[in-house]
Amino acid sequence: MGTDGVEQDKLLRSIRYKDGSLQLLDQRKLPLETTYVDIRDSKDGWAAISEMVVRGAPAIAITASLSLAVEISNLRTFNGTPSDAALFISNKLDYLVSSRPTAVNLSDAATKLKELVQKVAANASEAQAVFQACIEAAEIMLEDDVASNKAIGHFGARFLQKQQTDRRKISVLTHCNTGSLATAGYGTALGVIRSLHETGVLERAYCTETRPFNQGSRLTAFELVHDNIPATLIADSAAAALMKAGRVDAVIVGADRVAANGDTANKIGTYSLALSALHHGIPFYVAAPLTSIDSSISSGEEIVIEERSAKELLRTHGGMGEQVAASGISVWNPAFDVTPATVISAIVTEKGVITREGTDSFDIRGFIEKVAASSSY
Amino acid sequence: MGTDGVEQDKLLRSIRYKDGSLQLLDQRKLPLETTYVDIRDSKDGWAAISEMVVRGAPAIAITASLSLAVEISNLRTFNGTPSDAALFISNKLDYLVSSRPTAVNLSDAATKLKELVQKVAANASEAQAVFQACIEAAEIMLEDDVASNKAIGHFGARFLQKQQTDRRKISVLTHCNTGSLATAGYGTALGVIRSLHETGVLERAYCTETRPFNQGSRLTAFELVHDNIPATLIADSAAAALMKAGRVDAVIVGADRVAANGDTANKIGTYSLALSALHHGIPFYVAAPLTSIDSSISSGEEIVIEERSAKELLRTHGGMGEQVAASGISVWNPAFDVTPATVISAIVTEKGVITREGTDSFDIRGFIEKVAASSSY
Repeated sequence: MGTDGVEQDKLLRSIRYKDGSLQLLDQRKLPLETTYVDIRDSKDGWAAISEMVVRGAPAIAITASLSLAVEISNLRTFNGTPSDAALFISNKLDYLVSSRPTAVNLSDAATKLKELVQKVAANASEAQAVFQACIEAAEIMLEDDVASNKAIGHFGARFLQKQQTDRRKISVLTHCNTGSLATAGYGTALGVIRSLHETGVLERAYCTETRPFNQGSRLTAFELVHDNIPATLIADSAAAALMKAGRVDAVIVGADRVAANGDTANKIGTYSLALSALHHGIPFYVAAPLTSIDSSISSGEEIVIEERSAKELLRTHGGMGEQVAASGISVWNPAFDVTPATVISAIVTEKGVITREGTDSFDIRGFIEKVAASSSY
Repeated sequence: MGTDGVEQDKLLRSIRYKDGSLQLLDQRKLPLETTYVDIRDSKDGWAAISEMVVRGAPAIAITASLSLAVEISNLRTFNGTPSDAALFISNKLDYLVSSRPTAVNLSDAATKLKELVQKVAANASEAQAVFQACIEAAEIMLEDDVASNKAIGHFGARFLQKQQTDRRKISVLTHCNTGSLATAGYGTALGVIRSLHETGVLERAYCTETRPFNQGSRLTAFELVHDNIPATLIADSAAAALMKAGRVDAVIVGADRVAANGDTANKIGTYSLALSALHHGIPFYVAAPLTSIDSSISSGEEIVIEERSAKELLRTHGGMGEQVAASGISVWNPAFDVTPATVISAIVTEKGVITREGTDSFDIRGFIEKVAASSSY
């Protein structure tokens, strides 16, 4: 860790990790307070995920893994075989997964770590080797996520710049939070915006409030101000008017899950932005690591949308504050919507940009195979 | 006044008026408290408008006029000529207009009242006749607004029902508040929904939160619950997903101002709903009295959009509550957007429904002329 040197200090980090020590930026207190919470073991990690100290699919998976890493790194004694160590780790991982059972990245990460420690245990002579392998794997997850985000940022910024022929600087609209607060650092869609800013081609970033949980006004706005990126907050419903006024050159959002054809489930409101962009001839991009692609799902129609508590619309502060809405009103509060591939211009990944090439869907499988083939040389 | 008999008692009223007495429902306290504020004179009226006790273009104009009516009705002595009385009234009206200088209905109402009292003063023998004419005109304004809303409701419901061929019941999405809390009673777009409900053809009303001031979750939801109308609240950004799910048969909104070609300025977010409706082949209707049509404006491009305080997005409770958004973020907070006539299916008025007849704009002038010709028989 820590290979980023000076740059690491400037970068907003939701996850601070050093051998045997883990701290999480308490996102429940943002944007009013910037405080870090010490995570000493998997129990602390479980609580942090469950209580929303940390959020965002990649960040949750990494937090869980690192909380276990610091726990085993600080174990004074472990009297057991390598198999015992693998079992110890597996049990802790099962427990961690229960903190957010629907998070795909979290259960994927747990499965990978379990497979790893079982493999190591089969050939190891002492438990410590199993523990060390687990710690290293968790650390690599953290490093990989930042590296993957930076690659997404790089590919995305280069692609957006190439699309923009008539003006030097680009204004980009984004939704929800896909930045350092949702990942290990840098971000996916917000990573592309960061990269555009770093290369001097960003005119302005627009972020939506992202009702009802306000991830945009609380978190994305916080990140944009932190990084001194020229940025403006708008109500979600003002996006179409902003586009009509000619102030948006591109829209870029993250993804909770991308189906094999490119249909994308993302924070509620994404689909509405895509339709407005389509009407105004503005390109609409999805930025996501390849791990967000679920090849087992052929189209968005198979994605089941989680409905969240009515409270988020009835009260302030995501349901925990004062009453706002009229008593007795019913609420429909879907967490996500599905944007069909037909209205997505391109999908930016850490391995490059996937385009539709004039067809109705994305050949994501073909892209992944091509990437795998070229990297195997 | 009071010709509605029993029905009046059931109807939610933001304006309660009886000879010499005026009470306003304090909308700042909705939906948590239902309290009325006494308005004894134009000074109270000015304060109520300025401090948002009352809102909605028609309601503001009527409140101003009635506050003056109760003031002059309670005048003990007035030593002056009919001309003095007309001047007294004109000065009070100028003062009242200053409570919300951009409200077109308010300044229109003031202009009409001024013209009236000048005409009466020219032929009157005593001041009291001028005062009486002003009081009666203000009362007629109140009665006319309710009657006009009921006509809009009637025409709109009948039209929507005719458009709906495949199903018996209709689900309708609306935005902002256009009901009894924005008018003298019943409402425009919400009047159409009320009428659909009364005639038994409404399946469900959907109302948006209407960020950033939450007129939907606070006021429209309150009215819908009050009237026992099956209703569901959604985040503004969830509307497109709701339409995609096939749960919306029509969208109906009010208007702040309609240009001569039908372009409509209305609460921010209206345009976004219109684009989503267009994409899903769902009819999009505007409901507004003919007084909202500004024939002096040929298209929406001439409408200047008011920008409101950043606070509305930065803090809860329309800017008066706790901080939500990150410190230091810029905000773009337009009060309205303009929906072009091309994406509006029809305009529902108190004289009937104006359709586009396959053209790109509405022949509103022609419609008004036809209405005037037929009513002159």
